[in-house]
Amino acid sequence: MRIEELDTPAAIVELDRLEANISRFQRYLDEHGIANRPHIKTHKIPEIAHMQLRAGAVGITCQKIGEAEVMAQAGIGDIFLPYNIIGERKLERLMRLAHRVNLSMTADSEFTLRGLAAAAQREGLELETLVEFDSGLGRCGVQTPQEAADLARLIARSPGLRFGGLMTYPSNQNTDPFVAAARSLLAGDGLVIERVSGGSTPGMWQAHTHPEVNEHRAGMYIYGDRYTIKNGAMKLEECSFKVITTVVSRPTADRGILDGGSKTFSSDLLGLEGYGLILEYPEAVIYGQSEEHGHVDFSQCARKPEIGERVTVVPNHCCVVSNLFNQVAGVRDGKVEVIWPVAARGALQ
Amino acid sequence: MRIEELDTPAAIVELDRLEANISRFQRYLDEHGIANRPHIKTHKIPEIAHMQLRAGAVGITCQKIGEAEVMAQAGIGDIFLPYNIIGERKLERLMRLAHRVNLSMTADSEFTLRGLAAAAQREGLELETLVEFDSGLGRCGVQTPQEAADLARLIARSPGLRFGGLMTYPSNQNTDPFVAAARSLLAGDGLVIERVSGGSTPGMWQAHTHPEVNEHRAGMYIYGDRYTIKNGAMKLEECSFKVITTVVSRPTADRGILDGGSKTFSSDLLGLEGYGLILEYPEAVIYGQSEEHGHVDFSQCARKPEIGERVTVVPNHCCVVSNLFNQVAGVRDGKVEVIWPVAARGALQ
Repeated sequence: MRIEELDTPAAIVELDRLEANISRFQRYLDEHGIANRPHIKTHKIPEIAHMQLRAGAVGITCQKIGEAEVMAQAGIGDIFLPYNIIGERKLERLMRLAHRVNLSMTADSEFTLRGLAAAAQREGLELETLVEFDSGLGRCGVQTPQEAADLARLIARSPGLRFGGLMTYPSNQNTDPFVAAARSLLAGDGLVIERVSGGSTPGMWQAHTHPEVNEHRAGMYIYGDRYTIKNGAMKLEECSFKVITTVVSRPTADRGILDGGSKTFSSDLLGLEGYGLILEYPEAVIYGQSEEHGHVDFSQCARKPEIGERVTVVPNHCCVVSNLFNQVAGVRDGKVEVIWPVAARGALQ
Repeated sequence: MRIEELDTPAAIVELDRLEANISRFQRYLDEHGIANRPHIKTHKIPEIAHMQLRAGAVGITCQKIGEAEVMAQAGIGDIFLPYNIIGERKLERLMRLAHRVNLSMTADSEFTLRGLAAAAQREGLELETLVEFDSGLGRCGVQTPQEAADLARLIARSPGLRFGGLMTYPSNQNTDPFVAAARSLLAGDGLVIERVSGGSTPGMWQAHTHPEVNEHRAGMYIYGDRYTIKNGAMKLEECSFKVITTVVSRPTADRGILDGGSKTFSSDLLGLEGYGLILEYPEAVIYGQSEEHGHVDFSQCARKPEIGERVTVVPNHCCVVSNLFNQVAGVRDGKVEVIWPVAARGALQ
């Protein structure tokens, strides 16, 4: 099957670029002795996860149990789930996973830790658990090294748990001082922080500037998108993930309508102008969206498209776009080499 | 199973409200002699479509072939697909559908019409086709009654097609004058505009104020959301669709983190403050989102939630949220009566 035969909107991955992105970043982390633990939330495709592992990743990162379940079913043996898992039913599912794979977890509260500990102890497991801290994003995570040390001590004395280290997102200028402070607080207890897991794709090439961080979690680096380009982490010609759409209407001289809207591209703007970059018409702006229509202003384009023309869009944010597709086509030299189900899409959290 | 046993984030539909919403709007349209052709893009669940038909809908509306295929497989016999379908592969799929169900279509260009006509003629079919016009939304649709009349005439003389009437979205103050003008242009040709299909949920209770419109397409009226409330079409206590989430972190006195983010609620703001309304904490604001985390400011709440507490969110825009779930639980009196796969979610366009 040729790429032209894919029904639009079609999510595609250029395999040459995908492979290059995987190996380039792996090489960089290898050179700096940083463990690579890619976040599969971006692609949710087991075969791509295996490609990352074959290239040298130490394991993968998942953001919900459902993703981890799909990856475990696909034979992946080392999974990090940096999410506060809460509630009996989820803990049951988690324990089933922990019996099958080398699972590590995080928590940022005593509440979450006690749940993990009780479940793991019941199952006779010892679950590697890291303390999540807030490096400034303002999401989850303890706020001070003192709180981190307190939770580390609680993990260390909880049967069922084993203290693994610290985790944050993203790695930034606050990360190293925080880790260093927690390290000295714990030294007196004989507690060693072995693993420090940081991450982000925008900051992927600065991973080596954080000496305290010995593991990096990046997701988008395999695909790339307008946001990653804006942040300087990738170039347009490195982006492997695109959406092919069709111009289905040209109601006025300047307006064109694509067969992809907010159920294709999501509504993520991330500070960018428009909902994606049309490669064939870089001056065009996808200024609005309905659920299945993209509203495009072609007024700045010297040539304007015909109805029926196919155009290629680099999305703003690849993670949420791939999550809206049931399948992604892997292409090379215009040929469809593989059609991957986005296997972990919509999986239970 | 009780509602408390659903893993979060869980999309739920309160069945009493769903049924009331379906029958209330059907009664209104019946009283005014307007055909009800609900848009299933909101729920994408065949059983709900059947409930709408049993209540009196004349058929359903789908926004892409994939949705129509799923609905046809579920035994639904009358489908309107008001979308410019373009390209040989899609036209083939469309023709397979047209053999099985009473299918009607729209087009807003000669290009789209010629494709439909050629495909239908090859198959020995006569496809009811309406002309889409732009009532002011600025999406698809011809811009003038003259263009509408030209396309109507092209349909009428195309073997394979039958002129069905006009279609627009939404019904508004421009709709009636446009239809009336097109009607007089076509009178000389002996072409009658039998069907005029308008729509929208925000304007659902004004459907009777458009005498030229004899069919209404609404989607969200069965579920409701903050946007529908803001537009005055529904009350909060009529909203049937919610997402149950868990507070997974309380990093600071005022901040709470939910286990639902942009992959649960989408990034649709639609002019609203925050990404959803937390029923138990109406003063709280979901001010930010990561993909699997909702960032909530609880500073204005007298009581603040504990970690592990479950909270119920009315989303901004139900259509894009239900599209992010693989399943929706139908509940009554706290009991889960049914778990519906969102069968047409992610279906090919």
